[in-house]
This record gives sequence, C-alpha cells and structure tokens, in this order.
Amino acid sequence: MQRMMSRPGATKVAVIGGTGDLGFGLAVRLAKAYAVAIGSRDLSRAVDAAAKASALARVRVEAKTNEEAARDCDIAILAVPDLPATGILSSLAQGLGEKLVISPIVPMLVKDGVFSLSLSGESAAERVARALPMARVAGAFHTVPATRLAQLGEELAYDVLVTADSRAVYDEAARVVSSVGKLRPFYAGPLTVSRLVEGITPALLNVSKLNKLKSPSIRLV
Amino acid sequence: MQRMMSRPGATKVAVIGGTGDLGFGLAVRLAKAYAVAIGSRDLSRAVDAAAKASALARVRVEAKTNEEAARDCDIAILAVPDLPATGILSSLAQGLGEKLVISPIVPMLVKDGVFSLSLSGESAAERVARALPMARVAGAFHTVPATRLAQLGEELAYDVLVTADSRAVYDEAARVVSSVGKLRPFYAGPLTVSRLVEGITPALLNVSKLNKLKSPSIRLV
Repeated sequence: MQRMMSRPGATKVAVIGGTGDLGFGLAVRLAKAYAVAIGSRDLSRAVDAAAKASALARVRVEAKTNEEAARDCDIAILAVPDLPATGILSSLAQGLGEKLVISPIVPMLVKDGVFSLSLSGESAAERVARALPMARVAGAFHTVPATRLAQLGEELAYDVLVTADSRAVYDEAARVVSSVGKLRPFYAGPLTVSRLVEGITPALLNVSKLNKLKSPSIRLV
Repeated sequence: MQRMMSRPGATKVAVIGGTGDLGFGLAVRLAKAYAVAIGSRDLSRAVDAAAKASALARVRVEAKTNEEAARDCDIAILAVPDLPATGILSSLAQGLGEKLVISPIVPMLVKDGVFSLSLSGESAAERVARALPMARVAGAFHTVPATRLAQLGEELAYDVLVTADSRAVYDEAARVVSSVGKLRPFYAGPLTVSRLVEGITPALLNVSKLNKLKSPSIRLV
C-alpha cells in the first residue's frame, strides 16, 4: 500500500465517536482540510474506522482513544450517537480545555414509530456546555444526513443552522461547516436555541418515514 | 365598482383572525379555490380586511365575526397571532364541531432579542385539539412567511410540514396547503410532533435576524 500523505501543519480535528455513521462521514470529509483523528472508547475500533476513512479520503486519518483525541486536537466534534453521560464528558473536559467543541448531538427517542426529542426544556448542546465549562461550544451538523457524508460524490448542498453563545465561536464553527461539501452555515443564535434546531432532525425523520423520502435535509429559501 | 364574482358551490373556508398578516395572506390565496370568509372579534375590522382581500384576489371574500365564521364554514384556519385563550377557543367549539381546523399558530416569545417557543412540553396544535375535542385538527403553514402570502406575484415554492393524528386528516389539510402557491405539504406525524414543527419558526426568525435574510422559509432537499 502506498504511503498516505499526512497534514503535519494543519489544524487538528478530533472526531470523538468517529466510528459511528455521522462521525465517520465527517472524518472523511474534514480530512480534506484538517488533520483528522477518529476517537473511540475502543482503540481497535478507531483503528479500523481510521483505515477505512484514510482509504476514502486519500489522506491519513489517525486513530486514538477518545481521551487521547480530546487532548491532542485544536477542535473536537462530539459525534456520539446519543447524549453522552455526564461522566464521559467530564473525563474529556480537561483534555478539551478551552477548545472549540462542536455538538451535532440530537437527543432522540422513538415511541410508537414517532421520532421526538428525549430532553425537555434543554438541548444536548447546553448539556455539553455545562459538562465542559471551559470549552467554546457550538451546535451544528444536526440535519446533515450521515449516510450521505461518507459518499464523496454527494454535493451536500444543504443549509446548517449553527448555535453558539457568541458570534466569535459561531465564526469558528462556521469555518468547519463550510469546509464540508457545499454546506452553508447560518447563525441561529445562542445555545438555548439548540433545542429548536435539534428538534428539526426528528421532524425530518418522521417526514422521511411518512413520505418515503430518503435522507431529507433542508435549505433556506 | 364592478360586482365581484362569488363562489356559491365552493367549499367554505373561515380564516379566524383573518385581519392579521398571516390570516389576511391566506385569505387572499385561498380565495382562488375556496369560498373564503375573514373572521375577526370585531366585525368592522373583518369588513375592512375582506374588502382589501377581495380587491387583491379579484373574487368576493366575506366578512364575519369569528363565531359566525366558525359556524358557517367547512374548514377553519386559526390564524390568530398567538395562542388563543382557552375561553376563546371554547366559544368557537360548538360552531366548529367536527370540522377540519388548521392551526398555523406558533407560540412564541422574544427574550434578549432571541426568539423561542413560549410553551414547553406541548404545542399550540395540541392545545387547540384539547379545546376543540370534536374537531379534526391539523398543524400547518408555520414556516410560510406571512408577508409573502399577500404578494400574489410570489411563487411560494416552500415546503410545509403538516401534523395530524390521522393520515385522513393530513390528506384533507394537505389539499388546502397545496392550493396555495407552490407550497408542498409533507406529513410530519401526529400532533405531538407539532412542538418540533412549531419550533422551526422561531429558529428561522433568529436566522433571519442574525444573517440579514428576509423572510426565510424552508425546502426539503
């Protein structure tokens, strides 16, 4: 096998939970512009996912434990499948420090075949911010269909609502969003707005199921 | 003034609260396919709005009190600006009976310049359904920019998420949605999903304000 190019001077992005669909797809896409590491609780799973991501992206994607990935990065994406327990977040807090942490987490449940939010009165992004009090937290990527991310032929001409408690943090997160396909970031306000933004995903999943649409996303018009 | 054509055999739509922006715009658009009456608590305001709507639509739009409009219609649209008091809904309940009642209501508040939902754990559409236990209630039109409705030159090529507790009620509401411009209805699930759908509107208002976008709406892609 040919030796893969790495990105020695590039900004380092850790995709925590990068073995899931969303994290894997983001790792593949972000490897175009960033030095990407896939983190997992289980290093061997991270190694497998990183090998596949490297082959798809044609650039080296590293494998790390979540803790190591959190410590050794400039930007972290919490691509965990559901809201992580506070304990898991706390174990990453020191490593993440004041870094930009992007939450694409949608706290979701399915009951009688209907998708809804599993948190009431709070968003995943706000919980993440509480568990990581030093970090600069933004919410983004919620409505990007995970399965289309890993298909590099897909344009991804979608709009992404981004939440953050300051315009400066939004701007940093918006740069990450803009580096993926043709995604267009829009500032949707402070983290309290995340509960509205996170709710769009279960609404879209219901629409997908009830109208036989495959992986719908949104555009502003 | 030329005598306006009326629609003697057409399905009768009452736009309750039809003097507000959204109600007025819907009345103007729906008059193309339905016999429309604008309802208001104040008959003289309904008369003024109906005269303007008739002139724009080039077909007769009637004016009624809300109670009279609710009684004398086949379909009612609750185009009230905010969640109506249960008392107001109760006063319409008997007149509305088992009719199709469409709620475009977004229960919203603004705090520190940020738009959010004013209800937690429940949607306006669910409250309407509780206050009108016989009616067939659907949620729709939440993300259609009110100001564009009354501008008949606007295509309105938007997608509308519709909630209803049965596919049959959805189908009826979807026909009403489809009659307005190029709006495309999508079934988003039962009324419990309305809280997610209603939340898209304050999210869009924040996006509008923070990104200097005029009256954004959404399309599924």
